[in-house]
Amino acid sequence: MPVVGMVGGGQLARMTVAAAVGLGATFRVLAESPAESAALVTRDVTIGSHLSLPDLSGFAAGCDVITFDHEHVPADHLMALEKAGALVRPGPGSLRYTQDKLLMRERLAALGLPVPRFAQASDVTDVSEVARGSWPVVLKAISGGYDGKGVWVASSAADASEVLAVAGARGVALMAEELVPFGRELAALVARSPSGQGAAYPVVQTVQVDGICREVIAPAPGLNRELAVEAQEMALRIASALDVLGLLAVELFETPRGLLVNELAMRPHNSGHWTIEGARTSQFEQHLRAVLDLPLGSPAPAVPGGYTVMANVLGGTDPDIYDRYIHVMAADPGVKVHFYGKEVRPGRKIGHVTVVGAPGEDVGSLRDRARRAASYLRWGSEDGD
Amino acid sequence: MPVVGMVGGGQLARMTVAAAVGLGATFRVLAESPAESAALVTRDVTIGSHLSLPDLSGFAAGCDVITFDHEHVPADHLMALEKAGALVRPGPGSLRYTQDKLLMRERLAALGLPVPRFAQASDVTDVSEVARGSWPVVLKAISGGYDGKGVWVASSAADASEVLAVAGARGVALMAEELVPFGRELAALVARSPSGQGAAYPVVQTVQVDGICREVIAPAPGLNRELAVEAQEMALRIASALDVLGLLAVELFETPRGLLVNELAMRPHNSGHWTIEGARTSQFEQHLRAVLDLPLGSPAPAVPGGYTVMANVLGGTDPDIYDRYIHVMAADPGVKVHFYGKEVRPGRKIGHVTVVGAPGEDVGSLRDRARRAASYLRWGSEDGD
Repeated sequence: MPVVGMVGGGQLARMTVAAAVGLGATFRVLAESPAESAALVTRDVTIGSHLSLPDLSGFAAGCDVITFDHEHVPADHLMALEKAGALVRPGPGSLRYTQDKLLMRERLAALGLPVPRFAQASDVTDVSEVARGSWPVVLKAISGGYDGKGVWVASSAADASEVLAVAGARGVALMAEELVPFGRELAALVARSPSGQGAAYPVVQTVQVDGICREVIAPAPGLNRELAVEAQEMALRIASALDVLGLLAVELFETPRGLLVNELAMRPHNSGHWTIEGARTSQFEQHLRAVLDLPLGSPAPAVPGGYTVMANVLGGTDPDIYDRYIHVMAADPGVKVHFYGKEVRPGRKIGHVTVVGAPGEDVGSLRDRARRAASYLRWGSEDGD
Repeated sequence: MPVVGMVGGGQLARMTVAAAVGLGATFRVLAESPAESAALVTRDVTIGSHLSLPDLSGFAAGCDVITFDHEHVPADHLMALEKAGALVRPGPGSLRYTQDKLLMRERLAALGLPVPRFAQASDVTDVSEVARGSWPVVLKAISGGYDGKGVWVASSAADASEVLAVAGARGVALMAEELVPFGRELAALVARSPSGQGAAYPVVQTVQVDGICREVIAPAPGLNRELAVEAQEMALRIASALDVLGLLAVELFETPRGLLVNELAMRPHNSGHWTIEGARTSQFEQHLRAVLDLPLGSPAPAVPGGYTVMANVLGGTDPDIYDRYIHVMAADPGVKVHFYGKEVRPGRKIGHVTVVGAPGEDVGSLRDRARRAASYLRWGSEDGD
């Protein structure tokens, strides 16, 4: 049995555990502490930092293939691991496009893919050129960010100058993007294996509130078939052009002028949690199959002609989510609760719920059920949500 | 988060791991060795024997509730655990009916439930009385068995004498049962919680070869609706009368004179593996919900109007099942492989595969797909299966 090592001990690694159990692949996790979400449930946990090359090297030595729960491992470390003979999937040459947003935009633009108007923002003139007189404009940290923030909306040139000054003082380089007047956000999730096989999940709608994903509807209701195929083809094309091994999630804006690529992630993604119950093959199993170069599983919906709705559970002020299970489960025996074992903090993603509908079942009532369960589990939040 | 401890480290405990991850319940396993199926993937494993009271007591001390992967824990030990304050679910008063087949038959008969004609077989006269001139007759060890065998078919009184003599010499008490001329075998799986809530899964057909379950079809094709409801009601009634907490699987014969109860199991059961993909709530999650006294999940099929087929993968002569994944997965991206991580030995259950059909999809083609995958994974077996 091959050994898969995942760097990062968050909920994505935690949910990969179940997929590894079924496949019989040995699954190891490099976590920062034994209290991390995945460390609580994984048989083989190494405690160490994804920023330390010795920690990474030691971990990689016991694994046949290395993959990721997040994209924060320094590129130099990844290249050193590869040089030492580790199979790193996706590799550093692919991951840099998730670590450097400007590089990603440039590459996608060069591939002829539709992206928002963008430019490096060295000074306010750069920002004004992106604005073309139409404010607000989005400013983003090219890599990382500070104080947990990486995106700002500047409503004027003066505003932009201020953001640039603060970021500059912290050594954070920015880029500017037009604020896209989009109708809604979509996500296209695909997998690609070293053998070059690809698989595309149904395109979903994501609902974000304050920059946090709150809800995913699969497939995206009422999405025009041509646009859905275009989104899937775009994601498969990016996966191939960027040599992605494993999963690729492409976040998209649906706008009056068509689809625009927003963000990329090369790992299991929040927009794919619905696949655990809603698809023939969960994104977690699919990611393992891809990085192990096994044939990919069917990405088809589990219930043909039915919707699946996933709602994230955010932490409220009550620390014990488990006490709330009895109410949620009693009220709706068909809702599926996933808990990440993370300490509850207001606004933090601590779990999710999924509701799978029957063929032809109204998506509105499925959304109501998912929201009700997620909202009840969050009870006690000061924002009353 | 409550801590659930499962005694036994087999595949049932292994498959419970994934369910515990989702619920956020802490899951511990008492396994006989670190190489056991569940021990390979469970974060908290205690190595010890289910026959040792000190091992059991030490394990129980760290758990909020104790449950089981098998029914081989001595009743005295279970009573001692309860006396010491452990929550044992199901309890010894229920489990004794799975440990003593004669007691089970007597109890079910007293409840007015349909069972095969039976009697304790102290000597050949007892067996002949059960036969009523119609041989063969089934002889069963009342508890346990020897040399891995617990059931014999005696084709004559002379044959029965021989079985009785050998068993007697080993101190194994037997019972006799009429050999039921059944049409097929069914299984009714239900859950019951301490609060008294019950949930019944669709009744399935099981296909046994040489006493080993090879295939499960959910729901049982063409089963008359009244019989299906009768089977579910019977199982719920047994669960209640025997005070079962957790899952109860009732194996049944479908005969021209109606349903007859064959065996009982009070734990996740091979006839319920299909529920992982095929039902809204898997039997493993349901068992945890029941023993934790959480509201039970929906036992409804995941795909309304569709069949799910599960085929067991038996070991062949090739020790590496993993090498065969590539073929099985490439040939059928919709098949779901579950591997138990057990050493491959000819005829041993080492995994299973599941195929979930679309509404109205032909059950024959689903069975073909499941059998083909299971049979390919077994490749190399000397019996050519």
